[in-house]
Amino acid sequence: MLENGSRGLTATRMGIDTQQELVVYMRSDCQVCRSEGFVAQTRVRLRLEERYIIAKLNLVSAALLAPGSIGLSDSAWHKLGAAEGDRLRVEHPHYLTSLSFVRSKIFNNRLSAQAIRHIIGDIAAGRYSDVHLAAFLTACSGDRLDLPEIIDLTKAMVSVGKVLSWPGRSTVLDKHCVGGLPGNRTTPIVAAIVAAAGLTIPKTSSRSITSPAGTADTMEVLTGVELSLEQLQAVVGAEGACLAWGGSINISPADDLLIRVERAINLDGEGQLIASVLSKKIAAGATHVIIDIPVGESAKVRSQKRARHLSTLFAAVGNELGIRVLPVITDGRQPVGFGIGPALEAADVMAVLQRSPQAPVDLRRRALFLAGLLLELSDQYAPGEGRAVAESLLDSGSAWEKFRAVCRRQGGLKSIPTAPYQRRICARTGGRVKSFDNRQLAQIAKLAGAPKAKAAGIQLAKKLGDTVTAGELLMTIHAETQGELRYAENFYHRVENVCRIE
Amino acid sequence: MLENGSRGLTATRMGIDTQQELVVYMRSDCQVCRSEGFVAQTRVRLRLEERYIIAKLNLVSAALLAPGSIGLSDSAWHKLGAAEGDRLRVEHPHYLTSLSFVRSKIFNNRLSAQAIRHIIGDIAAGRYSDVHLAAFLTACSGDRLDLPEIIDLTKAMVSVGKVLSWPGRSTVLDKHCVGGLPGNRTTPIVAAIVAAAGLTIPKTSSRSITSPAGTADTMEVLTGVELSLEQLQAVVGAEGACLAWGGSINISPADDLLIRVERAINLDGEGQLIASVLSKKIAAGATHVIIDIPVGESAKVRSQKRARHLSTLFAAVGNELGIRVLPVITDGRQPVGFGIGPALEAADVMAVLQRSPQAPVDLRRRALFLAGLLLELSDQYAPGEGRAVAESLLDSGSAWEKFRAVCRRQGGLKSIPTAPYQRRICARTGGRVKSFDNRQLAQIAKLAGAPKAKAAGIQLAKKLGDTVTAGELLMTIHAETQGELRYAENFYHRVENVCRIE
Repeated sequence: MLENGSRGLTATRMGIDTQQELVVYMRSDCQVCRSEGFVAQTRVRLRLEERYIIAKLNLVSAALLAPGSIGLSDSAWHKLGAAEGDRLRVEHPHYLTSLSFVRSKIFNNRLSAQAIRHIIGDIAAGRYSDVHLAAFLTACSGDRLDLPEIIDLTKAMVSVGKVLSWPGRSTVLDKHCVGGLPGNRTTPIVAAIVAAAGLTIPKTSSRSITSPAGTADTMEVLTGVELSLEQLQAVVGAEGACLAWGGSINISPADDLLIRVERAINLDGEGQLIASVLSKKIAAGATHVIIDIPVGESAKVRSQKRARHLSTLFAAVGNELGIRVLPVITDGRQPVGFGIGPALEAADVMAVLQRSPQAPVDLRRRALFLAGLLLELSDQYAPGEGRAVAESLLDSGSAWEKFRAVCRRQGGLKSIPTAPYQRRICARTGGRVKSFDNRQLAQIAKLAGAPKAKAAGIQLAKKLGDTVTAGELLMTIHAETQGELRYAENFYHRVENVCRIE
Repeated sequence: MLENGSRGLTATRMGIDTQQELVVYMRSDCQVCRSEGFVAQTRVRLRLEERYIIAKLNLVSAALLAPGSIGLSDSAWHKLGAAEGDRLRVEHPHYLTSLSFVRSKIFNNRLSAQAIRHIIGDIAAGRYSDVHLAAFLTACSGDRLDLPEIIDLTKAMVSVGKVLSWPGRSTVLDKHCVGGLPGNRTTPIVAAIVAAAGLTIPKTSSRSITSPAGTADTMEVLTGVELSLEQLQAVVGAEGACLAWGGSINISPADDLLIRVERAINLDGEGQLIASVLSKKIAAGATHVIIDIPVGESAKVRSQKRARHLSTLFAAVGNELGIRVLPVITDGRQPVGFGIGPALEAADVMAVLQRSPQAPVDLRRRALFLAGLLLELSDQYAPGEGRAVAESLLDSGSAWEKFRAVCRRQGGLKSIPTAPYQRRICARTGGRVKSFDNRQLAQIAKLAGAPKAKAAGIQLAKKLGDTVTAGELLMTIHAETQGELRYAENFYHRVENVCRIE
């Protein structure tokens, strides 16, 4: 029998979106399944010509699949690049020897460069299941990677993806915020200013890891961010800047897979963080990078001490990998701007770029500060000169013009959606706003649907130090569905001191 | 519209075996899905009257599901106890506050008793996804739980399940091996001897965690092991012993869920191990327990020092929870008996019980040693007397009679299956057998299909110290399919020193 002899089965798309996990479906009475013993296995290797994936095996009843067929989840279908009717071979996956290194790390041993390369190679090839990824991330978190391990991890992550080059441009700038501060959307403004100054900043951003919005999520509200490598190079060639999603050009495939599981377990360890950020900067071809590290009681980095430690590590790893990294410790006590969530943050960004009188002052100030430092880091401007140059480029409208030009090349500027469901949250007592809980605010915005629901999130009406009277508006929760609005509001009322007034 | 108003959807079984993970399938165009914002979520809460489960959400195309229906994986179907046509309500799951404790543990902080209870309660209720379980297990492994944490974890795991009581029996015995030693199947023999002596040993065993066979897997070859609580109590009431699978009576629901993920990441941490073992013993109503800790270079416990540390912890946790625990350190340098894998180990057990001349001497010796200690621990026999009593009960045929009686009550004694595919592995050089690699042997048996494929595994022809000539048989790999046989054999040839001859 052909089916059994060649072990070929006909590919069919199941029409199941498994949220990125690779799943294949086989009939439990399938000859291949039985003769090869796949029934007893949880994972199989699926081959199409020279390409293959490792996927989770689900057994299905006869009603769901024709005899001689094998079903693929949407994610498996795309990853393998299958077409309806392709003949696929099903094999036993090789035993993953790199898992012994993960085990070793769990027991607190140092990993060699070779061990790390082995692990990251297997991850990038899609050979780790979600539980393996979760174990690796957990084992590496909480300061359990030392400096040589972080350097090796960064190198390994660079080596499994593409590395972009920018011929003719010796200085390539980039910036990154380690996160944890809702609304800190300086990147689009900084990129526009720096490019308006004639410098190069091919900005690729990630989508949210644990926050209600990543820069790519916010930019996607305003324009297209899923650019091909050719499109990206064309935009940068013409404008000196782009504002794209890094995932679509596959510059750090291992990181993309790790981030999905980090998001599920709401975890973002120190070594992993540095490797993730710097590997993407190096892969994007950056030579000079600023890292924004906001510090606050409820930010990702909670103390000056930890921020200084992180700064040292960032600079050391950058140095070892041949790029200049300038870490900057900033104020992370409250959200930046008024909006939290993709569309609401996009509105803040637009207000600053368009010099609206309602534009959030803190977002403008942070963007000018970082843009100024980046101008100076490039050696095009003298120390102390950057900030004034940045301000004149923003206030003259040059940055706004540059931003519009970039968006035009990325598919045009879109209008910002408004959430159909909104709930006003008012102060119970009067006084002064003493603190915000960034984590709870982020959680509420996520429960309201951000970042998947673009218009969802929170619009703050008050900021730190503002005077409030009882009954006055503190913030508005925005959602695209009533269920999510209720869910987010219930959470707000269950926790304490999201916004403390005294 | 009813569907939207009541948020009720019609339950249908998808016919997809997701290997225990709870998955629900909703149409992406479903009203409930869209109006409640489930499209943007990865997990939902599914309610049927007062029962509910938290499940992973997969979105499916219209072809797979009728309008107004919701599909359930086999596991979700059983866990919820749904019937075709039931109206199910879909809700947003509560935010899992216990995950903040898991995060805290990842960052190496101590967990309070309350935090542990909270985590275990959520796990037992099925609220953790696989990646959450993997993160928790990893965070707790590698000696990262201290004694109070292990005690609290044990108590929490007992508290979420049933606790059996044995009225009229003040002394209830049990034994457990921490594992890592292939073929160490003393339990059925020990239980038969102890019950033949008139004592009580309601043995509930687990299926394999990371090994090619657990006692429940081996016993399942010989008789029924999935007993209801009533059946189990009837068997023990009549015979003083049972040899059942613990999972079917739900005595430690959190542990059953953790074990599945431990198996996937091949991890079994110290604190988790102690809590898992002792919570099940306490839940089974045991008062006196022997813990077999085999030590060997390739066993789970590799040094006498670690074994002593583990012994101390076992005794201390037992003491705190009010049971007598006697840890026993044994020789773990090589597999016990000849067989590795459910059916092959069952054959060894039968040979010892039936006093066959071919019975493996080491399995017999270990079983007599442990049974003797257990008889003495019960205070029914004086120190030093146990071993002789055990031997006489085995040699007289009383233990075999007792074993047959127990099997009869558990559904009858079955005949042992033989694998249709076998491959002989012969020595390349002559000499003496200097060492076995237990881990590699276990891996080969698992690749051959054990424990799911009952007849699969390894039959050893030589043991430590035996003389071998070049070309002589060392072992035979058994498999139920040719694919698995090839897979296991390839692995044997890729690794070194599975059996070292010098």
